[in-house]
Amino acid sequence: MDRVNLSDIAKALGISQATVSRALRNKSGVSPQLREQIFKVAQDLNYPFKLPKDRGFKRVGIIIPDFSNPFFATVCYGIESVLRSNGYLTYLVNTDEDWELELDAVRSFLEESVAGLIVAPAANSERIYENIGGKPLVFFDRHYESLNAQSVLVDNEDIIFQAVHHLVDSGHKNICLVSGYQPIYTGRTRTLGFTKAIELLGLKKQNCPIVEGNFREPEAYEATKVALKKYKPTAIVATSNKTSLGVLRALRELGLSIPNDVSFIGFDNLEWMELNDPPITTIVQPAFTMGTLAASLLLQQIHGHPSSESVVLKAEIKYRSSVRRIGEQNVV
Amino acid sequence: MDRVNLSDIAKALGISQATVSRALRNKSGVSPQLREQIFKVAQDLNYPFKLPKDRGFKRVGIIIPDFSNPFFATVCYGIESVLRSNGYLTYLVNTDEDWELELDAVRSFLEESVAGLIVAPAANSERIYENIGGKPLVFFDRHYESLNAQSVLVDNEDIIFQAVHHLVDSGHKNICLVSGYQPIYTGRTRTLGFTKAIELLGLKKQNCPIVEGNFREPEAYEATKVALKKYKPTAIVATSNKTSLGVLRALRELGLSIPNDVSFIGFDNLEWMELNDPPITTIVQPAFTMGTLAASLLLQQIHGHPSSESVVLKAEIKYRSSVRRIGEQNVV
Repeated sequence: MDRVNLSDIAKALGISQATVSRALRNKSGVSPQLREQIFKVAQDLNYPFKLPKDRGFKRVGIIIPDFSNPFFATVCYGIESVLRSNGYLTYLVNTDEDWELELDAVRSFLEESVAGLIVAPAANSERIYENIGGKPLVFFDRHYESLNAQSVLVDNEDIIFQAVHHLVDSGHKNICLVSGYQPIYTGRTRTLGFTKAIELLGLKKQNCPIVEGNFREPEAYEATKVALKKYKPTAIVATSNKTSLGVLRALRELGLSIPNDVSFIGFDNLEWMELNDPPITTIVQPAFTMGTLAASLLLQQIHGHPSSESVVLKAEIKYRSSVRRIGEQNVV
Repeated sequence: MDRVNLSDIAKALGISQATVSRALRNKSGVSPQLREQIFKVAQDLNYPFKLPKDRGFKRVGIIIPDFSNPFFATVCYGIESVLRSNGYLTYLVNTDEDWELELDAVRSFLEESVAGLIVAPAANSERIYENIGGKPLVFFDRHYESLNAQSVLVDNEDIIFQAVHHLVDSGHKNICLVSGYQPIYTGRTRTLGFTKAIELLGLKKQNCPIVEGNFREPEAYEATKVALKKYKPTAIVATSNKTSLGVLRALRELGLSIPNDVSFIGFDNLEWMELNDPPITTIVQPAFTMGTLAASLLLQQIHGHPSSESVVLKAEIKYRSSVRRIGEQNVV
């Protein structure tokens, strides 16, 4: 290709060469929007120019506990979709469920004067937020009831209740929950939904064990293996997408098929769950919406017009083929 | 529980109350390691104390193009495992394959004086790195040949060659590649491995189509559907984990089973690939190692002892059950 010159850029945008020249030399008289377009075309055409100086970045810090979990990636896409269109860059720190790292992240963000923080906290990190100097803060996925902070949560109790209800409707009376980590809000509330369902739906506690999967694949796998041998449940409910993987691996290893041997309700609607044979009935959290709302609440705080409300979103069940109806004759 | 006091913390750690007191009042005479332990126990026991001031954070900026892709999450875990043990916090920015956002991220990081940058660049972002004031920089997964920068890559050409070789060994002569985005290094080099394999393994170009999946699930799905109808390949090779999902969805929708109707080699060894029925033969990148090496190279640069070498890692094939041997009688 011939050497690109100013007229190529001008032609591509239908503007004058003089305007292109002003923009690329960082002179005034060109709107920021047009300037951006000109930079973009110049870069795309590989035209040599000096990139302009900093534009005074506005930043928001995001803290998540596990970015190998696709749920958090989807929430972050939601957060970023709102913040970027409002001119904010987002810095993400992954704490790996370690509150000490979370403490460092918060301090580091405050030191740099981010405009605000959006956080899914690890266990035991509560005290970190007791004194952050009035910095705008929104929790998502998890929160601390004792802190007077805004949050965007899912109705965890209700969705697990609904999942158990669906199994009971299908004739199941021996249902196992592979729980999450109990010191974490989501672990606790999902377990609570299960114990309420047992109570209200006429199930027997001794037939409906709760085993600890701790939101991790290896621990969910071990717990499920134990549960399958000891309690012989006809149905299993998972409490996170990683838990779901552990349950599936345990079933596979013990040669148990879904749904003929064991019915299963997974968590988070990841793409592979639909492609699984059979496609997996699963709990769907509105992850992207959770992110956009968290960002919107934060922007309101930043602009000095905080809404007083936290938000609790409804999750849904995506019905597929991993739950089998059990006839009366099969029930003990 | 009774109110926790200093002696509980001292007892838990087997040290004196005076030491605990000094640490919690941020007085000198306590080693940083012990101080950390004391803070941790105090926090765990919910003992009221003021968190100490900043400790002068050292930071590294990480830039990735798509954090909904689990491959990048694994690399980042590798990066962080090295940097954290060396006292660095890592800030992550997700560019969503947008070089303009990458430009903002780099500028923002430079403005804040990060110690260095670890980057998987988007397409067309080359010029951003031409003048970053000698800031330590390591590329991973992707790089720009024209820039004299260190990088940690995978031998993409070779691993796709090996995948095609495995299919040819199994009797396949009609093989389709669902390619990545060609302006990106990994997209280009994986396609190159395929065209070399056709040439060197005696395949016919017209029987081995390349269709554009662009590393995105929806585009891979569409491209695969077209390829299956038009070319009727006996085997398909994917070029990323998202591409793999698209291929599987297309096969499912057209009612084609793996490996009886079509053999398949996936990309990146995600957990669901092993759990799939049948378990999927897949290309495995050493993602965690890629991260630890990128971090190590960056630390060497930061400490003023750069090694002169970039690194190219070998990928492997994990053999499972998604490739079928085709007998001579079945071959046209």
